[in-house]
Amino acid sequence: MSIATVSRVLGGSQKVNEEMSRRVLDAAAEVGYRPNAAARSLVSGRFRTIGLVMPDVGNAYFQDILKAVVTEAKKDGYRVVVIDSIGDADEEYEACLQQVPNVDGIILLSPRMSKAQLADVIAKAGAVSIVNRLEPGISAPMIVTDNAGACWEILEHLASLGHRRLVHVCGPTESWQARTRITALRRGAQRLGLELAVLEAEQGVEAGYAIADEALETGATAVIAFNDLHAFGVMTRLHDRGIRVPEDVSVTGFDDIELARFSRPAITTVGTPKLELGEQAWIGLLAQLRGDGVPPSTPISTPLTVRGSTGPAAGA
Amino acid sequence: MSIATVSRVLGGSQKVNEEMSRRVLDAAAEVGYRPNAAARSLVSGRFRTIGLVMPDVGNAYFQDILKAVVTEAKKDGYRVVVIDSIGDADEEYEACLQQVPNVDGIILLSPRMSKAQLADVIAKAGAVSIVNRLEPGISAPMIVTDNAGACWEILEHLASLGHRRLVHVCGPTESWQARTRITALRRGAQRLGLELAVLEAEQGVEAGYAIADEALETGATAVIAFNDLHAFGVMTRLHDRGIRVPEDVSVTGFDDIELARFSRPAITTVGTPKLELGEQAWIGLLAQLRGDGVPPSTPISTPLTVRGSTGPAAGA
Repeated sequence: MSIATVSRVLGGSQKVNEEMSRRVLDAAAEVGYRPNAAARSLVSGRFRTIGLVMPDVGNAYFQDILKAVVTEAKKDGYRVVVIDSIGDADEEYEACLQQVPNVDGIILLSPRMSKAQLADVIAKAGAVSIVNRLEPGISAPMIVTDNAGACWEILEHLASLGHRRLVHVCGPTESWQARTRITALRRGAQRLGLELAVLEAEQGVEAGYAIADEALETGATAVIAFNDLHAFGVMTRLHDRGIRVPEDVSVTGFDDIELARFSRPAITTVGTPKLELGEQAWIGLLAQLRGDGVPPSTPISTPLTVRGSTGPAAGA
Repeated sequence: MSIATVSRVLGGSQKVNEEMSRRVLDAAAEVGYRPNAAARSLVSGRFRTIGLVMPDVGNAYFQDILKAVVTEAKKDGYRVVVIDSIGDADEEYEACLQQVPNVDGIILLSPRMSKAQLADVIAKAGAVSIVNRLEPGISAPMIVTDNAGACWEILEHLASLGHRRLVHVCGPTESWQARTRITALRRGAQRLGLELAVLEAEQGVEAGYAIADEALETGATAVIAFNDLHAFGVMTRLHDRGIRVPEDVSVTGFDDIELARFSRPAITTVGTPKLELGEQAWIGLLAQLRGDGVPPSTPISTPLTVRGSTGPAAGA
């Protein structure tokens, strides 16, 4: 009784004759073998499981993308194992290496690891999709929104309202998204003849609240926040200081989360199609799992929604 | 070469003589066998993986508990597979049954399945921890906050401010948490001689916004919202109607999420120790995985934090 034969029988293959099948199954029963997914994975080399490595499972933005991936993967019979890298580049890389032997592929959400580490993970994992990072020379579907286009829309909107001095509250600059937006805003501001200061903040409402005073000290009449949570925090601080939005200062966000619609004033923001990001990440991974190669990546364009948090510049 | 022998060798056991070990490993190499976690699971009966079934991965409240479970499980070398049941009782039950063959245990977050289904999952999964549901006659750690105590604190606070007519915006009543709070608020209101109307709403800020008008029509001077998202939505609607909080109407929440601190007015709310819920769920599961049985469940008490959204009743 060879291992290959045992594998075939336990894997449900019809290529083994009946008598041999019975012997294998009897022996399996004797040692208490129960067929299960782990066994099937071992036999087929397929786990029907993918890993999703993300920087913060506690962040609504990432959760929405996670939700989309989970939903899409489930339709195709795949389970998603979620790993939180706590926003740490090395931890992220280690988590991927640990996952490789146990999953069919990996989706990297806003990865911060180095390019060399990224290439290593792709070589070892086989199938990888990357969300929120565009890295030349890397062979994987890279699902991103059109950050440059979105930044340009925000700048044009503020310029049309007469704002000349702007401040950008950016997110942690290890993230590709933060770096891309800083570059795009700087280029756009230069082209439109606007002044732009850049301040770095941690994630979340509280970080936006904490940096608002410093943002105002730049003399800007408009704050371009990294996301809606930052924008909300900035607006709360302005409210506490008696500074009116948008009469005294305009504020913009990114992502268009529920809070952006229901805060008062509601936040002018760039929508991030989180469902589409998650769907595209899964489509890109599934193509590789099926041996169809790496599909091309096209940035997803994002609409600007103008709401009450932006208005004419004071004195303009 | 018996399956048992193969298992022992591939599982790394020292109980097989060297010559036999070599034969097994050669045969394994021949069929392309690679040792991996799935193989080890098959041999040891341990996957080092647990399932976490939750109603909504897109909800900040559940995400925080998820994050705590992931962090704690990781410390003990376990991975967490997350399944979103989309708040559906049957889907939740099916997801559990599908998980059972692939995980060492299951954590159920705010389960809505029937008691019979719950008992069945516990019987099949072996190790189960339940968060946010207390069900007599079920043998599993049940990690809950002291909902009754929290409701009592809210009622006493509002009564002391002179509120006599209250309305409770509850969450979907399939959830144990929603039913428990309704019962506790009704009992408490009766004891304190207060009027209490109850309105059911869907989850989220938008649902709170949508139900605010109906809540006001009850003539209540205080809205006891099911959670902070509901409270925020209610407050936004009141703001849009020119009704002042707390001068005209007081509003309370549950959970003490970041938004409760940074909304204006900030929300009077009952803190939910989400980290502790996640930690206790993991501790309860690990005890079972180690064969130490089911630890006793003690409701976690929750503090009321009074902020700007509550004040003296109008005309009191």
